[in-house]
Amino acid sequence: MTADAGGSRGVLKKLINDPFDAVDEMLEGFVGAHADIVRLVGERAVARHPVGAPKVGLVIGGGSGHEPAFIGYVGAGLADAAAVGNVFAAPSPGVCLDAIRAASTGMGVLLAYGNYAGDIMNFGIAAERAIAEGIEVRTVLVTDDVASAPKSETELRRGIAGDVIVFKCAGAMAEHGASLDDVERIARAANAATRTMGVALSACEVPGAGRLSFDLGQGEMEIGLGLHGEPGVRRGPLMSADETGAVLVDTILADLEPRTGLDVALLVNGLGATAQLDLYILYRAARRGLEAAGNLVSRSMVGEYITSLEMAGASVTVTRLDEELKGLLDAPARAARFTR
Amino acid sequence: MTADAGGSRGVLKKLINDPFDAVDEMLEGFVGAHADIVRLVGERAVARHPVGAPKVGLVIGGGSGHEPAFIGYVGAGLADAAAVGNVFAAPSPGVCLDAIRAASTGMGVLLAYGNYAGDIMNFGIAAERAIAEGIEVRTVLVTDDVASAPKSETELRRGIAGDVIVFKCAGAMAEHGASLDDVERIARAANAATRTMGVALSACEVPGAGRLSFDLGQGEMEIGLGLHGEPGVRRGPLMSADETGAVLVDTILADLEPRTGLDVALLVNGLGATAQLDLYILYRAARRGLEAAGNLVSRSMVGEYITSLEMAGASVTVTRLDEELKGLLDAPARAARFTR
Repeated sequence: MTADAGGSRGVLKKLINDPFDAVDEMLEGFVGAHADIVRLVGERAVARHPVGAPKVGLVIGGGSGHEPAFIGYVGAGLADAAAVGNVFAAPSPGVCLDAIRAASTGMGVLLAYGNYAGDIMNFGIAAERAIAEGIEVRTVLVTDDVASAPKSETELRRGIAGDVIVFKCAGAMAEHGASLDDVERIARAANAATRTMGVALSACEVPGAGRLSFDLGQGEMEIGLGLHGEPGVRRGPLMSADETGAVLVDTILADLEPRTGLDVALLVNGLGATAQLDLYILYRAARRGLEAAGNLVSRSMVGEYITSLEMAGASVTVTRLDEELKGLLDAPARAARFTR
Repeated sequence: MTADAGGSRGVLKKLINDPFDAVDEMLEGFVGAHADIVRLVGERAVARHPVGAPKVGLVIGGGSGHEPAFIGYVGAGLADAAAVGNVFAAPSPGVCLDAIRAASTGMGVLLAYGNYAGDIMNFGIAAERAIAEGIEVRTVLVTDDVASAPKSETELRRGIAGDVIVFKCAGAMAEHGASLDDVERIARAANAATRTMGVALSACEVPGAGRLSFDLGQGEMEIGLGLHGEPGVRRGPLMSADETGAVLVDTILADLEPRTGLDVALLVNGLGATAQLDLYILYRAARRGLEAAGNLVSRSMVGEYITSLEMAGASVTVTRLDEELKGLLDAPARAARFTR
C-alpha cells in the first residue's frame, strides 16, 4: 500500500501523495496556511485579499516546484496575484486571466515573469483577453540569467532568482500608488540592473516523472544551470565554495557596466537541497569577490527564494543599486513568504 | 585541486571550503549579510545591536547545521543573542557566557535551548559564571519531541522545531518589557503547550565526517527521528504525505490534553532537502488530521525553520494556544531570518 502511495515511486524520496495531485494539494495547503494574506481565485490563481484603494496590479507566475516562488510573493508591497502552472510548466491562459482579473482595480496591470516560451505564450493570450475586457496590461520579462545567452542577446536570457528583485521593486512601486508607466519603468530598471548565475550539484525529480531531471557524476557540478535543469555553460569538477563564488561573481561582473565602484544587492539563493550553512559560506565568497573588485554590498538576502524542488545547488544574484531601487527594496512587504 | 578543496571529499556534495572552517565562514557570511540586525560578540556568539531601554535578555543557541536556527532568530521581538557551536555540537561555555553578557541589561537573562546533555552542561557552566558576575539567569529547556521519550518522562524529551515557538513567545514577552518571572513563565507555558514529531527520508553529512549521519534504504523512512539523526520510534516503508501527516498528528494529539476542541498553531518544518512543495502537501495532511479530530488551526508556519543540514524529511509541530500565546506569536519581530 504505502509503496504505491506516491512518494516512493520515483528515484528520489518525496513527501507527496499521487504525483498528479501534487500541485493542487500544495495550493490547498498554501492558501490554508496563509489565509490571512491570500485566497484562491479560480482553480490555480492565488491573489491577495482585496485592497481598499485602486492601485496598479502586479501579476507574477510560472510553473510550480519553485516554492516559495511564485505564490509566496503575493501580498502587500509585492504581487497582487500569481498564476500557478504544473511543476516546471507554464500556467494556462485561463489561470493567467484569473490572476489578471483579480489584480485589476482600474489602474492597469503589470505582468512580470521569467523569459520562457510557454509563459510568454500563455500570459500573452491572457493579456489579449484582458485588454479586450478593457484592462490595460503591460509585460516585463525577467532576463537575469547570464549563463543562458551572451551579452549581445540579453533578450534571450532566462529569468531565475532575479525574479525576486524585480517583483520586490515593482511591487513596492505599485504599493506606493505609482502609475502603470512608473511600475513598468521600475520593473525594467530592476531587471536591467540584475544578473544571476547558478550552479547545480545534483538533480531534482518532477513528481511522477520517475527519473531525475539530469545526470551528474559524483565529483561533478554543472555551472550556469537553469531553474528546470536547462543546460549550463559547462560541466566540471566540483569546486569549493570560494572557487564557485569567484566564478559566479567574475562572470556576473564581466556582464555589468561598470564593474567596479558599484553599490549592489547580493542575493544567494538555495535551489532546494543545499544546506543553509553552505549558502552563507557561498555568500561570504561572493561578497569577498565583489568587494575585492571595488564594489560595496549594501543589501543582502540569503535563503531559498526560488527553488527547483530538491535540487542541490545555489545561485548568486547581483543588482546594481541606485537610490530609487534601494528604497524600493527596503520598503515594507507582507507576503506569505516574504515579510519586510 | 578542486577535488580536494572541501566540498567534494565527502559522500554528499557541498558548497563549502575546508570543513573545519565551515562554521566560522558561515558566521562571517551571516553577520555580513545581516549587519543591520546582528553583530558578532566574541568568536562564536551573535547578538542583536544594543537596544535603548533595559529589558530581559533572551539567549538561545546550540550546534550549527540547523540554520536558519539559531542565529537567524536573533533580533527585535525574538532573541537577544545566540551561542553557536560546531556542527551538531554544543557551544562552549565561553561562547555561552559571551552571549549571556551581550544579552544582559540588568533585568536578568533567560536561557532557552533544546534539552541536550552537551548544551545543558555548557550553558550551565556559563550560567554559573554569569551569576557570579551578578547577572540573574534562569533556564528553560525545550522538550517538544514526543518521539524521544514517553509521556511519563517529558523531562527527558529533546527539543526540536518547537524551539521556534518557545523563542518567539518568550522573545515577544521580553520585548514588551516583561519581568524575568513572566518571560520564564511564558517560555515554560509555550513549551508545555507544544509537541513535535518528525520523519527523515535521507541522511545528512557533517562537513568533514566523510560518512552519512545514518543509513536508510531506498524504500524506507525513519519515523520520530531527532534533529541530529538520533534514533526514531521506528523505521518503516516510505509513506505518502497523507499517511505521514496522519501518523504524526495522531501521535501528537495522543500526547495532548484535551485532544479535541483545541485552538492550535501548526508548524511544518523542512529538515533541509525536502522540496517546499512537499512541505505544503504535508501541511495540508496535518491540518486535515487536526480538523478531523475537532481542532481549529488558527496560526500556521511552513518552511525551513530548524534544519539538519541537507537531511530530507520534515516535522509537524502543534501548539495548544490561548489568547496570551496567540498575541505573542502574532507580535512583531525583526530577526535576520524571521520577520513579522
